Amino acid sequence: MAERPQPLDQMKEQREHYLQLDPLGVAEELARLEAADRAKAFRLLKKQKAMAVFQLLDTAHQEELVSSLRDEQVLRLVQELDPDDRARLFDEMPAAVVRRLLAGLSPRERRLTAMLLGFPEESAGRIMSPKFIRLVPEMTVADALERVRRRGKDAETIYALPVTDEELRLVGAVELRDLLLAEPETRVGEIMNPEVRAVRVDEDQEKVARLIQAADLLALPVVDTENRLVGVVTVDDAMDVLGAEEEEDLARTGAAEPLGRPYFSASIFRLARSRATWLLLLAIAAILTVKVLSAFENTLESVVTLTLFIPLLIGTGGNAGAQSATTIVRSMALDDIRPGDLVRVILREGRVGLLLGTMLGGLSFVPVWIFTDRALALVISLTLVTVCTLASLVGSLMPLLARRVGVDPAVVSAPFVSTIVDATGLLVYFLIARAVLGL
Amino acid sequence: MAERPQPLDQMKEQREHYLQLDPLGVAEELARLEAADRAKAFRLLKKQKAMAVFQLLDTAHQEELVSSLRDEQVLRLVQELDPDDRARLFDEMPAAVVRRLLAGLSPRERRLTAMLLGFPEESAGRIMSPKFIRLVPEMTVADALERVRRRGKDAETIYALPVTDEELRLVGAVELRDLLLAEPETRVGEIMNPEVRAVRVDEDQEKVARLIQAADLLALPVVDTENRLVGVVTVDDAMDVLGAEEEEDLARTGAAEPLGRPYFSASIFRLARSRATWLLLLAIAAILTVKVLSAFENTLESVVTLTLFIPLLIGTGGNAGAQSATTIVRSMALDDIRPGDLVRVILREGRVGLLLGTMLGGLSFVPVWIFTDRALALVISLTLVTVCTLASLVGSLMPLLARRVGVDPAVVSAPFVSTIVDATGLLVYFLIARAVLGL
Repeated sequence: MAERPQPLDQMKEQREHYLQLDPLGVAEELARLEAADRAKAFRLLKKQKAMAVFQLLDTAHQEELVSSLRDEQVLRLVQELDPDDRARLFDEMPAAVVRRLLAGLSPRERRLTAMLLGFPEESAGRIMSPKFIRLVPEMTVADALERVRRRGKDAETIYALPVTDEELRLVGAVELRDLLLAEPETRVGEIMNPEVRAVRVDEDQEKVARLIQAADLLALPVVDTENRLVGVVTVDDAMDVLGAEEEEDLARTGAAEPLGRPYFSASIFRLARSRATWLLLLAIAAILTVKVLSAFENTLESVVTLTLFIPLLIGTGGNAGAQSATTIVRSMALDDIRPGDLVRVILREGRVGLLLGTMLGGLSFVPVWIFTDRALALVISLTLVTVCTLASLVGSLMPLLARRVGVDPAVVSAPFVSTIVDATGLLVYFLIARAVLGL
Repeated sequence: MAERPQPLDQMKEQREHYLQLDPLGVAEELARLEAADRAKAFRLLKKQKAMAVFQLLDTAHQEELVSSLRDEQVLRLVQELDPDDRARLFDEMPAAVVRRLLAGLSPRERRLTAMLLGFPEESAGRIMSPKFIRLVPEMTVADALERVRRRGKDAETIYALPVTDEELRLVGAVELRDLLLAEPETRVGEIMNPEVRAVRVDEDQEKVARLIQAADLLALPVVDTENRLVGVVTVDDAMDVLGAEEEEDLARTGAAEPLGRPYFSASIFRLARSRATWLLLLAIAAILTVKVLSAFENTLESVVTLTLFIPLLIGTGGNAGAQSATTIVRSMALDDIRPGDLVRVILREGRVGLLLGTMLGGLSFVPVWIFTDRALALVISLTLVTVCTLASLVGSLMPLLARRVGVDPAVVSAPFVSTIVDATGLLVYFLIARAVLGL
């Protein structure tokens, strides 16, 4: 959209409007504007509010604003971010800009940010906060509370507190609630939970987030290879990770890449780009179906009626395959299905597919007989049984095999499975038709 | 799976094994057992551990255990649950059992649980905790901390504290962190955030959870129609809601209903049931494609080659429709797209579809020309352009219209759109073929 001239009184009105909203309200409104209007609107905010709003924006919008505001203002905004949010933003920006911004930070913030950027993308190290409050078991509860009061302003969370020995090795954790309810002279070692879970700094971010979700944690300690505490991942970051992973899985089940930003803030071109590769690759894979049909052109010429059921049969097979693939991919993400479960899964999915195919094959026999003839009804029913079973097997096998060869199972998702099942389904259909109809 | 006799030493070994695991570890192992083995394994746990494990299990597994343990043990487990978790469990159980269990609770727990069960399903009232600590603005920070210490044991959270007036009307909120860092004689009214967000007790649970996620909250106050505080929703419950909603959306995009339990804890029959209705309904909808093809049987007989491209064309149309539907449904769930945005969305999606169709149509022209002839190449290209545009329009329009008539947009998801697009795509294909080939 072109830049629109904005009269002064309209700007004043908008400024008044933003004064009435809380920072989240402003952030929500900004997310719905077109890119050109967003920076203009952001400039209307007062300093304090601008900071609060900036922290609540998506990384994509933060990055967009950074490239359209003055350097001095950008530096102020970036200095105020938590190191993990800052690292996420820097990831999206050109290296030259990152270097300039890093140079403008205070030495401590620069050191912390550089440390996080040193960990692999999508690892625990990238989403953790290095600003934590550490307790030791020998401390009294009164000392611990005093430490929380003294350092609480700077720490990302004070509600879940890791406990370490002198060498920074994690030995337990204590919730602020337990400190507050305990007698002041009790030792931290007596009330801490020594069975605390922790993750390694190179652990996958989705695993970290799922653990926080499953165990109802407010924060999870992150340790290095020698079990030394290096940071904590907080629940709000875990929610953001799960939101992003959810968007990715859902997008791929719908044959697209995730947008990574709100719908209206993505341009038409960006929307098309997120879909083009998938659409093209799936169309190329679908050339298989043209090949199969060419091979059976003679059969089709002699019994044109066979054509009528092609979309229904491959559609049903595609759906059965999609059902299976979606269930398996999701269960693998949740760790409900593990790599060693391959045979157990295949056996289950094969039976489910057979059950569903038998149901559909049984239900379709009489109607098809009535509208065409008995031989064709038999062909359709047998094809439905076979295709549904096959589709469930392919739909479960492909994501499992993908992981074995090191590919993200979510890539081998519903639309991909459907396309493969289309071609094999056609093959099955014509082989059964030839056998039953004696062609 | 049939009950297997379990030798004593094997049981002893399993008990030892569970002693080594933390409650979450035991809960994870239990979730992977077949139903019959789960209750047996659970009985091996010591009392304290059993409670902790029970609280971490899925509602589906809790319900399963409740029906296979002794009443006395069940009552102890249920009494220890938070009222919101208890309400969720009771929802899944037969009314007679619920009455018996309610009668066994302490009067206070019974009253709180009954209150939650009185709110509509999937509302804020169902997932909130009625056990909160309330502050008033006139209190000093020292008094507030004293109240937190005194009542902290029983409250679901002490980290985010709502502030109300004498009539229980919400006037603000304060984080425990701010209390702890403030001077003891400061008034709560001076440090509280008066712009606190709250939700009505009948608000949809997904909206509540998304708000907690967007604003990085630890807890969100819930109020009645007169703005009086009745509970708080905590971040761990928000994560569970988002997990469940995610499972639902993803399952439907893959043409199935959510399982609501881990993969291996669902029987073959339950797996098949979660898919059967969708598969059957979509097959019935696909009869439309048979109808369209029957209408063009003469065309097919005269140019059999047209058949070869049917799966590729409708597959591509289906994918384009799925892409659009998945994006729109997700954006509606996130409130990025609102009901009033219908025209704006249609215009965007139409252009995206046209862009994608033009790309595919352009790329396919020369290859199809080489392998068949120029007229057919023209038919295929024109069909791709039209079908992709149409599919994007249908894919975006259907979820938007669904919400207008009060249907959950997620029901009108990718597979449903694909099936509709299949039939219209065939119609377009044959009309273009007839026109171009002069049939």
